Amino acid sequence: MEQQDSQQIGVNVVIEEGVVIGKNVSIGHNTVILSGTIIGDDVKIGSNCVLGIKRSGNKRMRRDQDAGNQLIIGSHTTIGNIVSIYSGSRIGESCFIGDHASIRENVSVGQDSVIGRAAIVELNTTIGNSCTIQTLAYVTGDTIIEDHVFIGPCVSMSNDKYMGLKEYKMKGPHIKRNAKIGNNATLLPGVVIGENAIVGAGSVITKDVASGNTVVGVPAKSLHKD
Amino acid sequence: MEQQDSQQIGVNVVIEEGVVIGKNVSIGHNTVILSGTIIGDDVKIGSNCVLGIKRSGNKRMRRDQDAGNQLIIGSHTTIGNIVSIYSGSRIGESCFIGDHASIRENVSVGQDSVIGRAAIVELNTTIGNSCTIQTLAYVTGDTIIEDHVFIGPCVSMSNDKYMGLKEYKMKGPHIKRNAKIGNNATLLPGVVIGENAIVGAGSVITKDVASGNTVVGVPAKSLHKD
Amino acid sequence: MEQQDSQQIGVNVVIEEGVVIGKNVSIGHNTVILSGTIIGDDVKIGSNCVLGIKRSGNKRMRRDQDAGNQLIIGSHTTIGNIVSIYSGSRIGESCFIGDHASIRENVSVGQDSVIGRAAIVELNTTIGNSCTIQTLAYVTGDTIIEDHVFIGPCVSMSNDKYMGLKEYKMKGPHIKRNAKIGNNATLLPGVVIGENAIVGAGSVITKDVASGNTVVGVPAKSLHKD
Repeated sequence: MEQQDSQQIGVNVVIEEGVVIGKNVSIGHNTVILSGTIIGDDVKIGSNCVLGIKRSGNKRMRRDQDAGNQLIIGSHTTIGNIVSIYSGSRIGESCFIGDHASIRENVSVGQDSVIGRAAIVELNTTIGNSCTIQTLAYVTGDTIIEDHVFIGPCVSMSNDKYMGLKEYKMKGPHIKRNAKIGNNATLLPGVVIGENAIVGAGSVITKDVASGNTVVGVPAKSLHKD
Repeated sequence: MEQQDSQQIGVNVVIEEGVVIGKNVSIGHNTVILSGTIIGDDVKIGSNCVLGIKRSGNKRMRRDQDAGNQLIIGSHTTIGNIVSIYSGSRIGESCFIGDHASIRENVSVGQDSVIGRAAIVELNTTIGNSCTIQTLAYVTGDTIIEDHVFIGPCVSMSNDKYMGLKEYKMKGPHIKRNAKIGNNATLLPGVVIGENAIVGAGSVITKDVASGNTVVGVPAKSLHKD
Repeated sequence: MEQQDSQQIGVNVVIEEGVVIGKNVSIGHNTVILSGTIIGDDVKIGSNCVLGIKRSGNKRMRRDQDAGNQLIIGSHTTIGNIVSIYSGSRIGESCFIGDHASIRENVSVGQDSVIGRAAIVELNTTIGNSCTIQTLAYVTGDTIIEDHVFIGPCVSMSNDKYMGLKEYKMKGPHIKRNAKIGNNATLLPGVVIGENAIVGAGSVITKDVASGNTVVGVPAKSLHKD
């Protein structure tokens, strides 16, 4: 470990070889930082986290190309307690990652974004700047979330339209700038949510939503006259 | 730490200064008890928990008034494993907090209530006596849940009707005595669920539900002739 | 502990007396293995897990017959990080249990099955071979899931049709071979999903679904002409 001054490291913290930790970093008790993790300046990490996890699986799970061996945490970012983050991902500056959240490999999160408590972000996903992913939201793999997007609590997405039935290139939703998704909405694989669109709480999105449109219901329909 | 006889403290437990622990308390391995936590008699706490967390956030998250620096756990309460609870909250006597649950600051839980496995309770929320909040339910911030309420698994609530678009005083649901909310129901910000009302599983509640009424569907409608 | 050669045990791992660990097992840092846990050969376990938990509760929670004191993990199974599993359950060979998942007592999981990230499996439940239970899915208690079933992300089930109102023998869904349940679907207590049936994303299943049928909507209806 390459250590700097002014760090506050808790009790029973495990820091593996090859970890780089910036200035003025604090790490809570019992947290595990695995090899390949690079932590910027002024980062705060809670207790009982596991950072820098190497991907795993059983024989029925897919194997993508290697996502790389580093987890990079941008400066001024705060990570809560009991969080898990994989290596091969990059968290931007000044983000907040809530307690119990989990972020997989090959994920990029921009700056100033919030990943809520117990929210899950799966592999191969890009999240822009100043996004809010609320509590218990599920961001599936192979998803693109542009800047200033709001994902409400408990929103559910999927990326496998055949539900394991056949070989298929997974495709998650593409959610464009400033779109807002209400709580517990359900998004089907590959749907595109346009800029400034609004999805009502509890809606089921089975097809693309045009920019600026507001949709509600099951299946979701436009509130505007088209 | 002010310790009493008859405690069972696990391996690698971290107990910060200023923690008060009652009689006949057991604490599982690797659990972290942060300063300001006050634990009553006959409390059982599982392994790998973090209790007494101080609130945090990034610049895009709201800052409420200080919720206080103490977490108070009532006597005879049982806390599972891998649980996180913030300081500034009070858990009543004889409660049960399930594994992987998370409770924020400025929350009050009455006595004999159950907060289920992986359930989340956000800040500024009051939960009464003998309530059941089931597994993976999401109780948003600024919510009032009265006594004897049943919240089914995976119920989702929200408190921000503008989804981050404008400044707004957050308001979660108000769920009155004996109301029952079916699994995976969606509650919009500020809705009032009357006494003894029943909300069907998977319903979306967009407006208030009268006392004793049963509602189902998207959006939810009354099963009774009105 | 009865230890074998070729184990890799992390830092601060707690292994209670009476634990049996097979050959070529790796255990991550800060993980807790409680008494009565029996781990097969070639098992990989992540960091900050708690395995072999004894059941608990408060006075308002049910007490079933004793589920036994052993947790058995089959050989070649991989368990992620921050996972909790109870004693009295058996996980088959070559399974994968995702990070933050939780499995209760008296559960049986067949071989080659995947229990996703943050998925929850409640007590008295049987899951067959080669099943996929995706991220954040909730498998309630007293549920039967046969072989080759696909449960999408955030699927919600319940087993208590009176929502705590009266004494009742809990009954979860029965999901038959090869059935597929779309993400965020809601299943009511006791529904039977037939072989090869498909449940659309976001649907609410209030009654049985015939074999080979496809149903969607709230409440779910058949896409086929009946």
